[in-house]
Amino acid sequence: MTGSTGNDVKGNGNAGQATAEQGTLGRGELELVDRWWRAANYLSVGQIYLRSNPLLREPLKPEDTKSRLLGHWGTTPGLNFVYAHLNRVIRRDAAEMLFIAGPGHGGPAVVANAWLEGTYSEIYGHVGNDEAGLAELFRQFSYPGGIPSHAAPESPGSISEGGELGYSLAHAYGSVLDNPQLVTAVVIGDGEAETGPLAASWHSHNFLDPAADGAVLPILHLNGYKIANPTVLARMPQEQLEQLLRGYGHEPYFVTVQDPGKTGQAHQDFAGVLDQCLADIRAIQAEHRGAGDVHNGAGDGTSGDHPGHRWPMIVLRSPKGWTGPRTVDGLQVEGTWRAHQVPLSEVRTNGEHLKQLEEWLQSYRPEELFDGDGRLRAAVAEAAPTGDFRMSATPHANGGVLRRALKLPPYRDYAVEVEAAGTERVSPMITLGSWIRDVIAQNMENFRLFGPDETASNRLQNVYEVTDKVWQYRIDDADEHLARSGRVMEVLSEHLCQGWLEGYLLTGRHGVFNCYEAFIHIVDSMFNQHAKWLKVHRRLPWRQPVPSLNYLLSSHVWQQDHNGFSHQDPGFIDHAVNKKAEVIRVYLPPDANTLLSVMEHCLASTDCVNVVVSGKQPSPTWLGPADAANHCRRGLGIWTFAGSEVAGGEPDVVLACAGDVPTVETVAAAELLRNGVPGLKVRVVNVVDLMRLQDESEHPHGLPGRDFDGIFTTDKPIIFAYHGYPALIHRLAYKRTNQEGLHVHGYQEEGTTTTPFDMAMLNGIDRFTLAIDAIDRVPGLAEKYSLLRQELQDRRDSAREHTRTHGEDPEEIRNWKLGG
Amino acid sequence: MTGSTGNDVKGNGNAGQATAEQGTLGRGELELVDRWWRAANYLSVGQIYLRSNPLLREPLKPEDTKSRLLGHWGTTPGLNFVYAHLNRVIRRDAAEMLFIAGPGHGGPAVVANAWLEGTYSEIYGHVGNDEAGLAELFRQFSYPGGIPSHAAPESPGSISEGGELGYSLAHAYGSVLDNPQLVTAVVIGDGEAETGPLAASWHSHNFLDPAADGAVLPILHLNGYKIANPTVLARMPQEQLEQLLRGYGHEPYFVTVQDPGKTGQAHQDFAGVLDQCLADIRAIQAEHRGAGDVHNGAGDGTSGDHPGHRWPMIVLRSPKGWTGPRTVDGLQVEGTWRAHQVPLSEVRTNGEHLKQLEEWLQSYRPEELFDGDGRLRAAVAEAAPTGDFRMSATPHANGGVLRRALKLPPYRDYAVEVEAAGTERVSPMITLGSWIRDVIAQNMENFRLFGPDETASNRLQNVYEVTDKVWQYRIDDADEHLARSGRVMEVLSEHLCQGWLEGYLLTGRHGVFNCYEAFIHIVDSMFNQHAKWLKVHRRLPWRQPVPSLNYLLSSHVWQQDHNGFSHQDPGFIDHAVNKKAEVIRVYLPPDANTLLSVMEHCLASTDCVNVVVSGKQPSPTWLGPADAANHCRRGLGIWTFAGSEVAGGEPDVVLACAGDVPTVETVAAAELLRNGVPGLKVRVVNVVDLMRLQDESEHPHGLPGRDFDGIFTTDKPIIFAYHGYPALIHRLAYKRTNQEGLHVHGYQEEGTTTTPFDMAMLNGIDRFTLAIDAIDRVPGLAEKYSLLRQELQDRRDSAREHTRTHGEDPEEIRNWKLGG
Repeated sequence: MTGSTGNDVKGNGNAGQATAEQGTLGRGELELVDRWWRAANYLSVGQIYLRSNPLLREPLKPEDTKSRLLGHWGTTPGLNFVYAHLNRVIRRDAAEMLFIAGPGHGGPAVVANAWLEGTYSEIYGHVGNDEAGLAELFRQFSYPGGIPSHAAPESPGSISEGGELGYSLAHAYGSVLDNPQLVTAVVIGDGEAETGPLAASWHSHNFLDPAADGAVLPILHLNGYKIANPTVLARMPQEQLEQLLRGYGHEPYFVTVQDPGKTGQAHQDFAGVLDQCLADIRAIQAEHRGAGDVHNGAGDGTSGDHPGHRWPMIVLRSPKGWTGPRTVDGLQVEGTWRAHQVPLSEVRTNGEHLKQLEEWLQSYRPEELFDGDGRLRAAVAEAAPTGDFRMSATPHANGGVLRRALKLPPYRDYAVEVEAAGTERVSPMITLGSWIRDVIAQNMENFRLFGPDETASNRLQNVYEVTDKVWQYRIDDADEHLARSGRVMEVLSEHLCQGWLEGYLLTGRHGVFNCYEAFIHIVDSMFNQHAKWLKVHRRLPWRQPVPSLNYLLSSHVWQQDHNGFSHQDPGFIDHAVNKKAEVIRVYLPPDANTLLSVMEHCLASTDCVNVVVSGKQPSPTWLGPADAANHCRRGLGIWTFAGSEVAGGEPDVVLACAGDVPTVETVAAAELLRNGVPGLKVRVVNVVDLMRLQDESEHPHGLPGRDFDGIFTTDKPIIFAYHGYPALIHRLAYKRTNQEGLHVHGYQEEGTTTTPFDMAMLNGIDRFTLAIDAIDRVPGLAEKYSLLRQELQDRRDSAREHTRTHGEDPEEIRNWKLGG
Repeated sequence: MTGSTGNDVKGNGNAGQATAEQGTLGRGELELVDRWWRAANYLSVGQIYLRSNPLLREPLKPEDTKSRLLGHWGTTPGLNFVYAHLNRVIRRDAAEMLFIAGPGHGGPAVVANAWLEGTYSEIYGHVGNDEAGLAELFRQFSYPGGIPSHAAPESPGSISEGGELGYSLAHAYGSVLDNPQLVTAVVIGDGEAETGPLAASWHSHNFLDPAADGAVLPILHLNGYKIANPTVLARMPQEQLEQLLRGYGHEPYFVTVQDPGKTGQAHQDFAGVLDQCLADIRAIQAEHRGAGDVHNGAGDGTSGDHPGHRWPMIVLRSPKGWTGPRTVDGLQVEGTWRAHQVPLSEVRTNGEHLKQLEEWLQSYRPEELFDGDGRLRAAVAEAAPTGDFRMSATPHANGGVLRRALKLPPYRDYAVEVEAAGTERVSPMITLGSWIRDVIAQNMENFRLFGPDETASNRLQNVYEVTDKVWQYRIDDADEHLARSGRVMEVLSEHLCQGWLEGYLLTGRHGVFNCYEAFIHIVDSMFNQHAKWLKVHRRLPWRQPVPSLNYLLSSHVWQQDHNGFSHQDPGFIDHAVNKKAEVIRVYLPPDANTLLSVMEHCLASTDCVNVVVSGKQPSPTWLGPADAANHCRRGLGIWTFAGSEVAGGEPDVVLACAGDVPTVETVAAAELLRNGVPGLKVRVVNVVDLMRLQDESEHPHGLPGRDFDGIFTTDKPIIFAYHGYPALIHRLAYKRTNQEGLHVHGYQEEGTTTTPFDMAMLNGIDRFTLAIDAIDRVPGLAEKYSLLRQELQDRRDSAREHTRTHGEDPEEIRNWKLGG
């Protein structure tokens, strides 16, 4: 390539002049990288603007352009630039690399590079490597029935949705865990760098084991502007920025594009810095991967100083909309926020705009890039790596390909033997912790447990019998279960837990996120994006199933005696069920054995989000191992041991429950009724799989109507004690015959730092209130049993009085046992 | 005070020895500060442990302690230490200060200091300044019917819920905006410092005008541990930490407690640093508040370099559980994670623990602090500031006291005149922008507009006619509407927008948060905490009403043609309505005039969260100014101009709608039916105030049953086109007579980057689908009008075909007008 046209065309396209400046790249290499970049830029502009005439065989006409211009140019040339350079080192080193495009609206770049690498046409046959394919590539972008403007599941090589912003760096770290050979290059937009989750993500390297994990190469792309504002990181003084990035623990290398036209210099600068960064990464890894003690003196929980390494990173300062029109209608565009979307917005109606667009496209010299049939010329194509080394084709970005099913120890070996229902009190979470411990032990390379400093608080501490929490900074003698490597990821950021886990799952590995129930709302929006990703992913035949995202929510709304009102929120379930039914599962196991059974099922599942809620306090175990498995398989069932109905007949009232605390209160209420109202036929129904309440037309787990009617009756009162906000049960059951008879008790947003039974009473899910409600709703009972009703009311008042006086629940409540 | 007991009692309490080291404090000052600290610590330990014998008049017995120990000691002594020192400078300087306790479980400290200052007893008469009051102070903490363990609405002097963590610094910045005399001292826990929102908050000073706003003094409290882990900031190398804090733009001052026993040295060190920080703050403020050009050359949008100031901050490294037991049962406690909750956990059953507790309490020498009646001795009390200078009594922390109602320009002056319904197409958000512009102009000192880089994208750009976006870093010539001061707060972090606004509201000022609808989920959890705060706040007579939190959600699910699936989520409404009905309001104005009316109402309201959803694209204006006001006052109503019913009679079918896009489709569907099915009586109902759909027993805005039945009929089919997820309408209306007849169309989680009408079709809320559904559900119509039905289906298919072919919706859809 020789410096020729385009560079001095003021106000038009400006692909620059990659003259062979002295530097890292030889002339041939420089030209190769630059050709690739120009090709990717050409394809990006084409996607945003063109619906026909993709090779500019004829002068551009207004009708060649799209009637609605829905795309974003600003970030694209920077992404293409980085991609071109990464390809060079991948080819040279046979490096295993994954690319994550953090900036919003990076879709055109990701798609363009995938097409150049051939991957796009391999996956999407209708978008071939020829002129027709190019036309389709351009047409489909941001077009009805086409593809999104962000990196998305549809984009080959992508594991990070580019829409919401802020999660790219966390995704990158998740991808390299347990992938020691992988380097994930993540371009971070300076817009998204202002978000909280991204700001927290910089500390992720403290949780990365240089010996057993791969490396992340963050490329902070300072193009200076968001939608309509400058960015904080681009505008802070350079000295401060350096301090900040060093403060994050990185060694920053800066590449600054001083003159947008001198692209050759930019190539040389970037290539040199990239080589340096990869050398730094290999040096750190070599230091920790030598023979012997790789962990700098700190092995399994042993104390020791931070090894002291600083991972490299790149800061690329380049103009927003680089190589695009410098000025439009007399206003500067390249290098300003005006380049964010479409720099030329009136190409259909403004001849000058159309002319500028054509010059802009021509400035990439398409004739050097594509042959007469629209096929990529060999002189460009040779810049691509081959096969799985192509970042658009790496199996890491289609993690299902690499997924290996977990070896799951039979949960029955961990189950509690139950002589009589409800007599054995154990902590479900402690019980589960032993099983997860052995899941970890048997899957040391593809399973991790994530949590925001709550793994022990959620009572999963048995896992520390076989593993540790990862930590690279100083480890002191008093620390417990901290080590340079481990299977437990703990940081006080739900965002990081979620982001790391998403990156880990989408690259084909398995995990569980354990969290206080209330605070999982912190990642509501990240969950949204992941659920949306899975919905689209499931409809793409080329994407292989990935392990499900498993939420294990404990320290739940009814067990917040230490923490109070701020820690009480069971609404994540409501939030989750708004997403596509095919993706969402919600489980409320009532005891330890059902929790084990549910978790076994979840860890074997793919392409779902499983929400599991379980208490951590000792509580009755209702079902033995075999019964628990059967109950979970059915998802809900009648508990004859707790009710008082006559076989074969209809009950007078149904007491239903979902959730561990509501189950205790319901079984206790049934006992109160059995003792107090002889002959009353009480049916107790427990629901484990909440989605069974929906109709089969609404959810794959939905119960057929006649089965539902058989269990819940068509006309008897149903007193339903539910773990969360009552409205959800009505919502799920709204099509059921007996919806009129359904009366739900649940969390009413009442609470403080108080005892467990006081919480139940405050919200009306306590046994006394449930029993009274049953008496009131079964015709004729209230009058006949007014004394019993009064007695139950008195016992409730007295329980409250005792709690207020003594600061703890009455003995007969705390140690209540069914039939005891 | 002289060095005496306690310092060498290994393993027991250790209040230390505040000998008068050389330093900032004279001997008297040192003793005063230390006495206060000891008193606060004594009261904190008392709250956690004691239920009787508050002054230790008798040897401590097991039954003097609480049966359930629910509290957290770890962070408390550090908070008390800081508070004591702040009181010294408040007294000296008559400084206006606000205290925010960021670390979790800081409740005992906040409450202890409020009691010492007398505020607690003034507000809560039953907790007096005597022995009985002390007993009650201790008993109520973390006790059934008592007070929470976190800073909370119940805590005098607090504006920041201490439960969820991560928002303290953003709250602090919100509090000082437009409060030039205020310094908010915010203690940031090193646990919460790992969260994303806190990490992003460090950049807030870029949005703080030193001339017109107050100052924030961040005190990063490195006590080293979270629940069960060390913290990232405490363990990173000291050099790196300094780089990080400088990188955040701060000048950090370090106070490190080397020897926990040498409390005198700690006092001197902290006092010196605190004096220096306040001097630095005053110097920066003086520089920007001189006569003339206070903004360093950059006035209204003028370019200029960053003024270069670095706000000071303090890093306090002190042991977790400082002055508590050093070792318990042979294990180190003070200075480790073991000090997080209750260091001595078995005081009721373990004599050694009980003895240690007594020695610990005695180490604070209560006899020097309280007189024989349990009253605070004057030698302690004199350390407190007086009146409103007490941080527990500052009106800034009870913002309703300072609230001044906004001057609201009559919205009718901005309303669109409507000659015929639906003929005038305007952008509701642009229209609203002019009104907000004048709200800003008339309330320059107590109203701000917050948004994550989306204010212009949401079409509120008219506000820039009177104000700018605040920005302190470099301002370039190409920047627009950036200035050192302004009323618009833009940063690409929904967390920061929310946190700043909460701080601004709770200190008595007003604001609006404008945001893309989908991404408001990013702050779901912050919303939860604010809604919970308001619920409790409303029940506290001493807390005065504060301005409502107003969400203005635009760029909504139906108008994401640029962005696609990742930007489509109308679920925040569902999330919001789970909170207490008394707090939550949801409005879906169908056009510009109703949007104006709704926003006027919201900005005048207090103690609520208002969720308003509005489109930004030009859309039909249905109601003239007066009709719009009436419609909004009623909250919902029958639109006779759109229907075809006969006055006085019952309709055959009800077409209901909520949301602007569903309203257009519903009115168009009614027109299709009117033209196609002569004689069919179609009623069109529009819902602005979504809560009207609930029963009056469920929500203060709920519509009485008979009114609902009168509008929606008791037995006719209701085809309801709703803006969001359909289930919500069923949920809200589930108690209504005609719930069986209700058929809701809404967002079904289908979408991509496509045209507006394609979005409607993808989710079945388009006019054709609605009209067909009506035909299918009115008995007898489907057969009789099978041709019409087919025609509508064909028109739908053809619209889709057109869209796919041409990349835009058909002309007759894009420019459809009622009756046109």
